[in-house]
This record gives sequence, C-alpha cells and structure tokens, in this order.
Amino acid sequence: MFEFTFHNPTKIIFGAGKESLIGSELNAAGIKRVLLVYGQNSVIKSGLLDRVMASLKASNIGCTQFGGVVSNPVLSHAREGVALAKRDQVEAILAVGGGSVLDEAKAIAVGALAHEDVWQFFVGKEVERALPVFTILTIAATGSEMNGNSVVTNAETKQKYNIASPHVYPRVSILNPELTHSVPLNYTAYSAVDAIAHVIEGYFTKQPGTHLQDRLVEGIIKTVIETTDLIMAEPTHAKARASFMWTATLALNGLTPAGIGEYSFPNHMIEHALSAIYNIPHGAGLSIVMPAWMKWYLPKNPSQFARFAKEIFGLDSGEAGIKALEQWFVAIKSPVRLGEVDIPAADIGAIAENAEGLAKQWGIGDLYPKASIGEILKLAV
Amino acid sequence: MFEFTFHNPTKIIFGAGKESLIGSELNAAGIKRVLLVYGQNSVIKSGLLDRVMASLKASNIGCTQFGGVVSNPVLSHAREGVALAKRDQVEAILAVGGGSVLDEAKAIAVGALAHEDVWQFFVGKEVERALPVFTILTIAATGSEMNGNSVVTNAETKQKYNIASPHVYPRVSILNPELTHSVPLNYTAYSAVDAIAHVIEGYFTKQPGTHLQDRLVEGIIKTVIETTDLIMAEPTHAKARASFMWTATLALNGLTPAGIGEYSFPNHMIEHALSAIYNIPHGAGLSIVMPAWMKWYLPKNPSQFARFAKEIFGLDSGEAGIKALEQWFVAIKSPVRLGEVDIPAADIGAIAENAEGLAKQWGIGDLYPKASIGEILKLAV
Repeated sequence: MFEFTFHNPTKIIFGAGKESLIGSELNAAGIKRVLLVYGQNSVIKSGLLDRVMASLKASNIGCTQFGGVVSNPVLSHAREGVALAKRDQVEAILAVGGGSVLDEAKAIAVGALAHEDVWQFFVGKEVERALPVFTILTIAATGSEMNGNSVVTNAETKQKYNIASPHVYPRVSILNPELTHSVPLNYTAYSAVDAIAHVIEGYFTKQPGTHLQDRLVEGIIKTVIETTDLIMAEPTHAKARASFMWTATLALNGLTPAGIGEYSFPNHMIEHALSAIYNIPHGAGLSIVMPAWMKWYLPKNPSQFARFAKEIFGLDSGEAGIKALEQWFVAIKSPVRLGEVDIPAADIGAIAENAEGLAKQWGIGDLYPKASIGEILKLAV
Repeated sequence: MFEFTFHNPTKIIFGAGKESLIGSELNAAGIKRVLLVYGQNSVIKSGLLDRVMASLKASNIGCTQFGGVVSNPVLSHAREGVALAKRDQVEAILAVGGGSVLDEAKAIAVGALAHEDVWQFFVGKEVERALPVFTILTIAATGSEMNGNSVVTNAETKQKYNIASPHVYPRVSILNPELTHSVPLNYTAYSAVDAIAHVIEGYFTKQPGTHLQDRLVEGIIKTVIETTDLIMAEPTHAKARASFMWTATLALNGLTPAGIGEYSFPNHMIEHALSAIYNIPHGAGLSIVMPAWMKWYLPKNPSQFARFAKEIFGLDSGEAGIKALEQWFVAIKSPVRLGEVDIPAADIGAIAENAEGLAKQWGIGDLYPKASIGEILKLAV
C-alpha cells in the first residue's frame, strides 16, 4: 500500500426512469439554466431528450440545447459549446449521452469559466474552476460519469489529449441501465474492452503486493466478461445490462488504483494515437493494443500475468492468460489486429511518433520511446 | 441489480504522517474553532495529540479538548460534548481515535446544532443538519471514517442504537496506518471480525444474483483474513496494517451494498444487545453471534453459503464454510461462545428481548421475533 488521496464526491442515482429526477437535482443545487449537451439523433428518437426537457421544465430550469457531439469528441465542437455557454450564461452543463458526450461536456464546463482557449487545459494548464457538470448516461463504458477525466481530440494537430481535474467530477450522474439496452452489440463489445482496459493498466504496471486492489480488479474483470457474454446472447438482458453499467463505472472511479502507488496508462497512450489519426472507436483500438502490449510487457511483470491467468481464466501461465483474453475479444467481435480496422503496418512509425508525444506528457517517455511503441504495435500486425 | 443512490463525499487522506495535514484541511474548509474529541490517554502518551495540536496551531485554529470517550460510547458523555460544543461555539468536530470516538463525535456534531436532546435522533427523529466532522483514525475497524453511521449506547435504558444520516459523513478522514501498529492483538482480532461482519450482512441477506457485489465482498474478506494473519505473526507488519486499514474502510462505506437491494443487519442487531447489556467489545460480540446466526440462517440461503465456503476457504459445503470461519475466529483468539465472555445461557431471554427492540426499529421484527433471536443465541452457548 502506498499513500493516496481518495475523494470522489459524485452522487450516483441508479435505476430505471431516474432521468426524471434531473430537474429536482439541478433545482436542489440552485441551478437556473443549463447547457444541455448531447450527441446524435438517437436521444431525440428514443424520447429521452423530451423526458429530460419535461423534467427541466417542471423545475423551471432554462435550457440551451447543444447537439452534435461525435465519438472521439473534437475540440472544434467543444469550442462552439464554450461559446454558447458563455453567450447564454448557463450555470451548469448537463450531458445526456455516452462517454464522448460527457467528456466534451466537461471540456465545455472548464472552457466556460476560462479566458484562455479550452485546449490550453489539455496541454498542461491547470484547471482551477469549472461549471458544475450533471450527467445522464446512455452508454456504459468510459467511467466519465464518476471521474475527473475528459478526453478530447484536436483534429488539426491529431492530438487526443486529456484533462484530469477534481473540478470536473460530475455533481450528479444518473444511470438508468434500461437506456443501454439499445446500445449495438459492437459498441457493447468496445465498451467491455474499455472497462477491462481501465483496470488492467494499474493492475500490471504498479508494484506487486497490493492484493486488495488486485481482487477488486479481478472482480470487475470477471463481471465484465460474465455480463458481456450474457448481453451478447440477449441484448436486453436487464440484470446483465445493469450490472455491466455499474461495473464500468467502478472500473474508472478511483477505487481500484487507491493505494497502489505509481502506475501508468500505456494502452490508452497508444490507443489515443490510433483513434486520433484513424478515428476508430476507442474500445476497438484498445482490443488491438492490449494483447500486443501484454505480450511485450509480460517479461517485466511475469508474476502478475500468472496471477491474471489463474484468477480470470483458471489458466496456468501468463502467456495462456493473454491468449485467452485475446480470444475473448475475438469472440465478442472486437478487433485484435491493425489490419482489421484497415490500418497498414507501414503506418506504425507515424503512430508511434504520435503516441510518444502523449508518453512524454504522461511522464512515461523513458519506458515508451518511439522505438518501443513501434515494437508493441508490430505485435498487433 | 436494484436501484440505489450512492453518494460518499468523504475525502480520504491515507499515509504515514498525514495527521500533520489536519490544520490545513480545516483551514481550507474555513473552520476557525473545533471540539477535539478523543478517548483515553493513549493518544496523549503516543504524542499524537501534541502533533495534532501543533497542526491546529500552525493554522490558527482554536480548539476545545474533550477526552474520555469509552469503547461502546455512552450517551451521557456525548451529551457533555454537545454542551461543550455549544458553549464554545465550535464550527466543527475533530475526532482523534477509533470507531467509538468517531461515532460519539458524530453524535456531538448532530446534537450541537439541535434544540432537542441528541438521543431523539437515535430513536427515530430525522437528522437535518450537523456540524462538519473531521477525523484522524487510530484503529481500523468500524468504517465510521467514511460513512454516515453513529452508534451510541444509552446506559440507562441499555439501548445501543444508531444514527444513519448523510449529514454525518466526515468531510475529511486522515488514515495513517502507522498509528494502528500499536493496536493490541485482541483488538485487532475484534476489528477483523467487525470488518467481516459488515460485509457478510448484505452478502447473505440480499437477493441472489448480484455477482459484482459478491466479488467485492469476497475480495474484502480474503484480504481481512490474509492481513490479520500477517499482523498476528508480526504486529508492526507495515504493509498488512496498511492494507487492513483501507480494507476495513471499504467494508462499510456503501460500496458493497450499492445495487443489492434490500438487506438487513441481524448480526449487528443481536450484538448490539450483547454489548449494551454486558459492555463487551463489539467485535468480540460479533464473533460469538456470527457463527450462530450463520448456522441458523443457512437453510434460508444455502447457495450463497456454498459460494462463501468455496470462494473464501475453497471448501465444498456451506456448513464447512461456517465452521472454517468459526475456527479462524478461534485461531485469532476472538470468542465464539457466550460463556467465553461470562454471559450465562440463562440470560438469553433478556438479551433476545433487548435485540427485538432493535429488530423492530430496523424493520426486521417479523423475521426476528424474540423467539428466533433466542434460537440463534442458543447456538452460541
């Protein structure tokens, strides 16, 4: 165990129909006007946006709607949101959607109270304040509903960078698992990969000997696999969808790394380069990167890979555990090779260069120079 | 999975020497004067109180000291604390000690802002406000450092009752595991029993099928057993003490029951009667009650007991799992029979009557009439 600070003040309201409480929650926080951030038309077609608007209206909360957030949300759109938030002097940002919508909403929350361009906060400037963020989650995956992270892509510079700040933890996040029943199976698979990726980063890159946190991670991974398999067989499996949703939240809310000391996010680092350049789904990129990184990293932490194999799959060697995870990604139809998402091996140098920029920003440039990232990516060809 | 609200705003600062941060944390919260609640002389002898006072002084925070909290803290002493807090118009309560100190501090925090006698809140009146509570924990066991519970005993009426309120979650809790190195081994054993008791109540009394939460509980129990065994062999085992401390916090911070639906606390209900009447350590009472209750409850949830046996002890039957837990209690020298703490079997009727009062207050009177509680207690003779 190492020293740590844990402070996660987000209030989670979990259950069917709970989006109807958003008006009263905003009201209780004294909010009179929000910027409602959403993505594509699905929240309109499903009737969710109408229900949210009705709840706001019932609590006399003014609303500026701002749709059009895309997967791998882009800086240019976030800047539009910042301008709107400033123009209409909103007091909070309400995100209705999946991780991309939540992440962009957080960026807008920061930009709305800043004189600087919001991108400054993604390339190193410390966040000192932000508008309060409220969320209604429609896709379980990123954990953004209960953490202080926001990832946004600068399409001009091809940088997929992030903010990590206590100021952007959502005040309230409403999780209605029924809203996730219609998430397509390919995106459900990518979400499962993402949740697993969130917990394995610390699990493998920390120092050994923090067994409590190992067990929390293993419980999360086993539940992700178990519930994803149930959902693949029956997409509206209510119990599995609900359990999957809360599991994905716990996978990146600060619980599993508390006390493990220093660790790093190499899989996310490399994947951010992939989706920044090729705009592939984040989870699809991760299922390509993870087995390759694991094969490369195995000799650096063999005992933890042996533990992983035994606890998750009941297998006897680290290699077998990695192979089993890769096969499970194949079974749920998430890609495991660059060619499956049409990324040519000839691009590896350029991808590695992009990822190296993030490695330096995240302080792991020594272990992950361009050459090492290239080696890892070659294992994904 | 069932609907739930999870909101745990306590900031945890974990690590050696972190008590020196208390002044700056209070300062950041705008607090100018505290009531410092502690127990016996151990915090004076160890030098902890001096270090805390130095930190307060460095931040110009005024302090009224209030020592003398006892194990199974009593209402009469809490009332004295309330009077002091009102007299000196303190703005926060700072608890320095174990679960008893923290629980009494929370009671004082409620009473200090109330016109009514503080006991009213233990027998049903809703808590609407409380002074902010800050804590420096010296014994890992009760989880009070990260939850909204307070248990206090009314010695006159022999009622050990509780408050459960969002208003008494500590604002900040400082956990320095080195402070626990000197906790005597018998109290360490009682603490281990308490942490296990906190998670098994929900684990066995909820509906089946919430596997994520089962796995979180199992990870906690396995870690408690593993670290307690290490501590019994080497009381200053730093890693084990640290891991034990954080594990005990997670055992009762709202994490494991989130999503499991309705559940109950029968072991605590019966134990509260024992320690209210006989003033035995809470953990000692629990290690007597738990195996007895488990034997009685086994037919009501055989599959979960089978799971428990397999996951925790690698055993094949529910009976064997209960026996293994009882034997482990014996191994760590926590009592498992009423006679070991000099409670005569002839008293069972009176104990059951006391516990029945709590069963009714907690809404489980139907399953636990006096007669059933008596049956359970007979299994502990």
